[in-house]
Amino acid sequence: VLRYGAYDAEVIERLRWIETVLASVMASALQKLEAPLDIRAMTAQALQMGDEGHNRNRAGTSLLLRELLPAFLTLDHPSADVVSVARFISGNDHFFLNLTMPAGKAAADAAAGVEASSVVTTMARNGTEFGIRTSGTGGRWFTGPSGVIDGLYLTGFGPEDANRDIGDSTITETVGIGGFAMAAAPAIVAFVGGHADDALAATRSMYEISWSESRNYKIPALGFRGTPLGIDCREVVHTGVLPFVNTGIAHREAGVGQIGAGVVEPPMEAFVRAVRALAETLG
Amino acid sequence: VLRYGAYDAEVIERLRWIETVLASVMASALQKLEAPLDIRAMTAQALQMGDEGHNRNRAGTSLLLRELLPAFLTLDHPSADVVSVARFISGNDHFFLNLTMPAGKAAADAAAGVEASSVVTTMARNGTEFGIRTSGTGGRWFTGPSGVIDGLYLTGFGPEDANRDIGDSTITETVGIGGFAMAAAPAIVAFVGGHADDALAATRSMYEISWSESRNYKIPALGFRGTPLGIDCREVVHTGVLPFVNTGIAHREAGVGQIGAGVVEPPMEAFVRAVRALAETLG
Repeated sequence: VLRYGAYDAEVIERLRWIETVLASVMASALQKLEAPLDIRAMTAQALQMGDEGHNRNRAGTSLLLRELLPAFLTLDHPSADVVSVARFISGNDHFFLNLTMPAGKAAADAAAGVEASSVVTTMARNGTEFGIRTSGTGGRWFTGPSGVIDGLYLTGFGPEDANRDIGDSTITETVGIGGFAMAAAPAIVAFVGGHADDALAATRSMYEISWSESRNYKIPALGFRGTPLGIDCREVVHTGVLPFVNTGIAHREAGVGQIGAGVVEPPMEAFVRAVRALAETLG
Repeated sequence: VLRYGAYDAEVIERLRWIETVLASVMASALQKLEAPLDIRAMTAQALQMGDEGHNRNRAGTSLLLRELLPAFLTLDHPSADVVSVARFISGNDHFFLNLTMPAGKAAADAAAGVEASSVVTTMARNGTEFGIRTSGTGGRWFTGPSGVIDGLYLTGFGPEDANRDIGDSTITETVGIGGFAMAAAPAIVAFVGGHADDALAATRSMYEISWSESRNYKIPALGFRGTPLGIDCREVVHTGVLPFVNTGIAHREAGVGQIGAGVVEPPMEAFVRAVRALAETLG
């Protein structure tokens, strides 16, 4: 309920607890660790354990708790605080997404600012528009209408309740996980009525529009091939293949929050506009 | 080093630590849990996270630590003891096998003693012979020579150092995990030079010799089909397909311990003998 615009008293209270108790316990735990958390290594492991790193994060969250456990056991904080933090993380299989998103952002930012590069460095949606930025065009946004998500709804909700695609979690697909690593997580497609082969096909089609393959993120079911990495907006326009994006579904009314999860197509216009802008920079 | 005949001072010391510190901390932790550990549910989850439950147990061990974490945080034991137990479990990705083997034994025993049933209820090896028991023939063992393991060795060891197949961990295959759930763990075959498709093929071939399919253990890559469950010794003899067994490799000299892991074929003789004995019971 902390995502997608929920803001009732419980949410505010939980945010204050995060700001005080959770932040404080985590800060101390991170100092106790013998080495900093290696989010990239943990994400790589999680992709070999059925996560794709966006809509499924059970393995990543489990690995995180395993890393934190020795530190948690020796903190000077009140044990009730440490227990509450451990239960909070353990009770939310998506907690690891809070770490992969900023890690993805750091990786994508490192690819920004390469002259004439057509690699996409940001994808984000505000519920109305879906925008991208490319490495070669700096801070300019290229946008199109935000899509309608094809997904599975929580009990009591349906497509008529859904807002258009919203949020910045598409940073996962931008760095080669999430929808791009679907082949690592056949459980997701099976859950929404698809088949394991659909998961393999989703990742395979993303190689057509990607500049490279990840050296770090490997998919066992594809013989440890690296995930498709670096969306090339020229190839999106050339092939007509749009990035495969996993995401959550927000309620259309502010205050309700997340009501489901599924897949969504970005608008082709954004990629066409980016290619035109890149062409202009080349004169 | 605690398995496969290693017995040096470090092993004895560790065994004493297990008998005192680990047993005591675990006993207290189990009492603190709100509900008993559900090993079957955890194994089912682990099979959706890249484990097959015999040669790969990283997900199961991670899930176990996640379950124990809240209890560990509130134990009255010296924190150094709790930390040492947590580090020991976390430092051994195979720890969960210590729980799945007895859980498998309990499940297999529940299938024993059914009149005329040709379902295999035990498979075990002593380094010289591979023996099976069936539900319909009670405590009688049917044996053949123990196989040579086709596997990957730890640095410094090779096939010339290997003992023949040994141990009782084949209880995992007996209850439909391990080699029978290979399709859940493509990382294992890729690691030894095979391909993800080999993992799918291994599980698919086991349906030919199995009585049923598990209602609990599902494989995402096979569209959530249940794992092949209940080896039917008649079908083994009829099809010529032998159970696919994952296992560790012990050094041929006592005291050295485990030197690798791989796959091994049980001897057909054992299954032929079991079928003949079953026929005799039917008169």
